[in-house]
Amino acid sequence: MTTDLLAAAAELVAIPSASRSEAALADHIEGALSRCEWLTVDRVGDNVVARTQLGRAERVIIAGHLDTVPAAGNETPRVIGETLFGLGACDMKGGLAVMLELATTLIEPATDVTWCFYACEEVDRTENGLIGLFASRPELLAGDAAILCEPTGALVEAGCQGTIRVRVEFGGKRAHTARPHLGRNAVHRLVPLLARVADWEPRSVVLDGCEYTERLQVVFVDGGVAANVVPDRASATLNFRFAPDRDLAEAHRYLAGLFVDLVDPEQGDTYLVLDEGRSAPPGLDHPVLTRLLKASGRPPRAKLGWTDVATFAEHGVPATNFGPGDPDLAHQSDEHVDRASLEAARSELAELLAG
Amino acid sequence: MTTDLLAAAAELVAIPSASRSEAALADHIEGALSRCEWLTVDRVGDNVVARTQLGRAERVIIAGHLDTVPAAGNETPRVIGETLFGLGACDMKGGLAVMLELATTLIEPATDVTWCFYACEEVDRTENGLIGLFASRPELLAGDAAILCEPTGALVEAGCQGTIRVRVEFGGKRAHTARPHLGRNAVHRLVPLLARVADWEPRSVVLDGCEYTERLQVVFVDGGVAANVVPDRASATLNFRFAPDRDLAEAHRYLAGLFVDLVDPEQGDTYLVLDEGRSAPPGLDHPVLTRLLKASGRPPRAKLGWTDVATFAEHGVPATNFGPGDPDLAHQSDEHVDRASLEAARSELAELLAG
Repeated sequence: MTTDLLAAAAELVAIPSASRSEAALADHIEGALSRCEWLTVDRVGDNVVARTQLGRAERVIIAGHLDTVPAAGNETPRVIGETLFGLGACDMKGGLAVMLELATTLIEPATDVTWCFYACEEVDRTENGLIGLFASRPELLAGDAAILCEPTGALVEAGCQGTIRVRVEFGGKRAHTARPHLGRNAVHRLVPLLARVADWEPRSVVLDGCEYTERLQVVFVDGGVAANVVPDRASATLNFRFAPDRDLAEAHRYLAGLFVDLVDPEQGDTYLVLDEGRSAPPGLDHPVLTRLLKASGRPPRAKLGWTDVATFAEHGVPATNFGPGDPDLAHQSDEHVDRASLEAARSELAELLAG
Repeated sequence: MTTDLLAAAAELVAIPSASRSEAALADHIEGALSRCEWLTVDRVGDNVVARTQLGRAERVIIAGHLDTVPAAGNETPRVIGETLFGLGACDMKGGLAVMLELATTLIEPATDVTWCFYACEEVDRTENGLIGLFASRPELLAGDAAILCEPTGALVEAGCQGTIRVRVEFGGKRAHTARPHLGRNAVHRLVPLLARVADWEPRSVVLDGCEYTERLQVVFVDGGVAANVVPDRASATLNFRFAPDRDLAEAHRYLAGLFVDLVDPEQGDTYLVLDEGRSAPPGLDHPVLTRLLKASGRPPRAKLGWTDVATFAEHGVPATNFGPGDPDLAHQSDEHVDRASLEAARSELAELLAG
């Protein structure tokens, strides 16, 4: 009997798991894994790790995050034809459904496998469940190579871009809005910064045949005091996605340099780094990842979003992205995944694990 | 014995009264007025009205608002030399101190006087206490002319500019910040609007020898969904202060016209009027106001901020602004008032009321 992966993914979408609210989904997955006597299951917070203990020469870690971005009217799963719509359908409950299916059916894989389901990937790096596991229970994540089931359209998306978030706050001087010449409007002072971001031209670089395109976006803007007061505080939060040919230090230098002439500490302005994630090079020379590439039957592509490939790389574990779903749909309100993509990811991962 | 007006004003500053929290100050003022047997005192919500009933040929309304803008670390009154610093010192607890002093000492003024202390002037017009009184208890505000003790440096500030607040909301399309080309950033779409406001050149007009300068400011900006999501909503709230040669309809046409090419309903954009207050012409030909102008001993000046002069004008009561304190200090964190200004306002109003 073949599991209906579309229905299985819909079941996972039906369990809400916005970041920091993954407990119900972790319970569901822990329950399913615990019924498999060939798996050793550990629960750490809302992270669930299940390992085979077959004494194989190699161990592959297959990982996915439980959380989704906030809902956008798309909480309820809907299957239309062969496609599942709903929050997280693409990023990444489709991948979780494939992982759960393989974990609960592959009794004797050719390599040992560590199945890692973790929390809080979509928020600040300080809350990331995988990073937390590496810090508190590194033995659970020992392995030779890792595959992240992020949406890639079931082909290998190599490496990942780095990410930096900064908040730029501008100072000003309050005054009555009828007499603004006596104040200094902090929101008006945001204009050159916002314009520079909106007009910024992305840079692209090709590494190992994969093209990485950098991105810069304002993700939050905030300012104001009262309806008749010239505001003395305003801020913009920026997200910079940088290519793997920049390390973190170089990326910080570049980003800060973009705005150095606009940020004036004497006016109370501040430039604050909120969050950072290093980039990871493609690095497809590890035998496990080479086999995965072969199983996928298609050339690799650059991973543009930050993923925990960089976390594994930082801990010396070569890793790549491979999972069902179109990565372009991640975080969109109409995100979806189709049956063909789920089945392709399952069969290619099964081929890899069959040795 | 002469009352120490600086100390009296400090006592009022020491009673917090940010908009919607005026009850304690209203209690204090109602208590002081109720001890004057020549006054009929009415309390309506946090508005307090005290009237002489002398059967004079003329009745002058003297009014002031109880509320202040939000605190900015300036809650505690401080007297330094002959100057009082603190939230509301200038706008307009100095004026309230002068009103309270005259109300509780002028037993037999030459005109009947209606002393009106009212709530919620610094917020949305729908909450304004004076407008509420005109609606619910118009008999309390019957009179021949009105003086608002807003800060004017103890000279006549004639008429007032109108005010309109609008919120412009921009739509967009969510996407992952690593793939922003698949979305549309609503915050980036704010840029041309914010730039147009920041670069806007004010228009000035001279009426009855008073120069009115129009103003346009962003007072709030807001946008963002999550730290790695291209935002699909962003808004800016604007405050337009327009000269008395524009009526409300013309001011609306002008303001909407400034942004009509930027607001695209097909992208989910909206242009929403939040609040409006009509302008009032100088209109200094009423005998009471002519006498006040004479008592002040100085030429009149344009009132740039919106004041309830427009509310009185709308109800057929000629009105002007006259009170202690530098109007340029209103809503600034270092607002203050000095003894000389308080005493000038007291003596000039006393001269007017002496007939």
